[in-house]
Amino acid sequence: MRLLEQRILRDGKVRPGGVLKVDGFLNHQMDVELFRLLAQQWHEAFRADNVTKILTIEASGIGLACIAAQEFGCPVLFAKKTKTKNIDGAVYTTRVESFTHGTVYDVIVAKEYLLPTDRVLLIDDFLANGAALEGLCDLVRQAGATLVGAGIAVEKCFQPGGARLRGQGLRIESLARIKSMSEDSLAFMD
Amino acid sequence: MRLLEQRILRDGKVRPGGVLKVDGFLNHQMDVELFRLLAQQWHEAFRADNVTKILTIEASGIGLACIAAQEFGCPVLFAKKTKTKNIDGAVYTTRVESFTHGTVYDVIVAKEYLLPTDRVLLIDDFLANGAALEGLCDLVRQAGATLVGAGIAVEKCFQPGGARLRGQGLRIESLARIKSMSEDSLAFMD
Repeated sequence: MRLLEQRILRDGKVRPGGVLKVDGFLNHQMDVELFRLLAQQWHEAFRADNVTKILTIEASGIGLACIAAQEFGCPVLFAKKTKTKNIDGAVYTTRVESFTHGTVYDVIVAKEYLLPTDRVLLIDDFLANGAALEGLCDLVRQAGATLVGAGIAVEKCFQPGGARLRGQGLRIESLARIKSMSEDSLAFMD
Repeated sequence: MRLLEQRILRDGKVRPGGVLKVDGFLNHQMDVELFRLLAQQWHEAFRADNVTKILTIEASGIGLACIAAQEFGCPVLFAKKTKTKNIDGAVYTTRVESFTHGTVYDVIVAKEYLLPTDRVLLIDDFLANGAALEGLCDLVRQAGATLVGAGIAVEKCFQPGGARLRGQGLRIESLARIKSMSEDSLAFMD
């Protein structure tokens, strides 16, 4: 069994409504030593791809992305969920529907930081319905950058995002792949 | 001149309305190699304080906090701006007024991750009016944890947050201290 799957079995909990609670180590409290080991796995998978930029989305992808960026020796760019005063000038915008929050929101990145010459690796903590990841793909496409693939911590393989995005040609490396889950049991893909 | 001040002079820009644009390396695109050097400076300042947890606030503090946590060998906890489905159970809540966004919002942390035994270092990218940092102090106080101090990347010393919080006894280590700024000039504290 994989490292992150072991940690989920030990410290994760499944809540009613299909919510996997991993906020003790992944997305509220963050175990940066674990993050480093996960980052090494992504680097192993994408080391030949000359990644020049890691793109993630706020907020819970940022920690993983920063630790991963150390492995790849490149900067992180995080897509923002609202336009703030601190970003001026032109931005790429896409629309994302959040399963977690039950909302639709715009995400943006400043055009000056996502370039046609960039080779972009997407990093996020979860892949379920794939809306956030699809939004990031769209931002890369708008920029004319090269999309290398996606490094995901936890993929809920019983939800459609992974299959749909792989069907569109996206390479996805998920470090824990959940086949099924309920409050009583948690099963991973073989 | 300090490392971060040099970088601000090189790559930062002052926009109308007192907004310092550092989103090319600090809070949109993130230079994690720079972050590591900043983290080492905070570690140098607080190394004797037995920090057990780094507390920050989403979103732009998270990257700095994660890289800093590697230096201290402790986890990061980030305060969330809204209550999501993924946090159940009891939370500490405080109210923060955002200068950047012109809004008031609640921030929360799960009680189970902020303990009376914790020795907490706060990390954030900016200190200006001090509202976010004050909110984090309040969360630490509610938990009965020990507040070791705060590591700040950029302090706008011409705004009142730093003086007020130091007056309340908070130890603050700011890595770039801006004395004054306009679209034509940027001066740092001696």
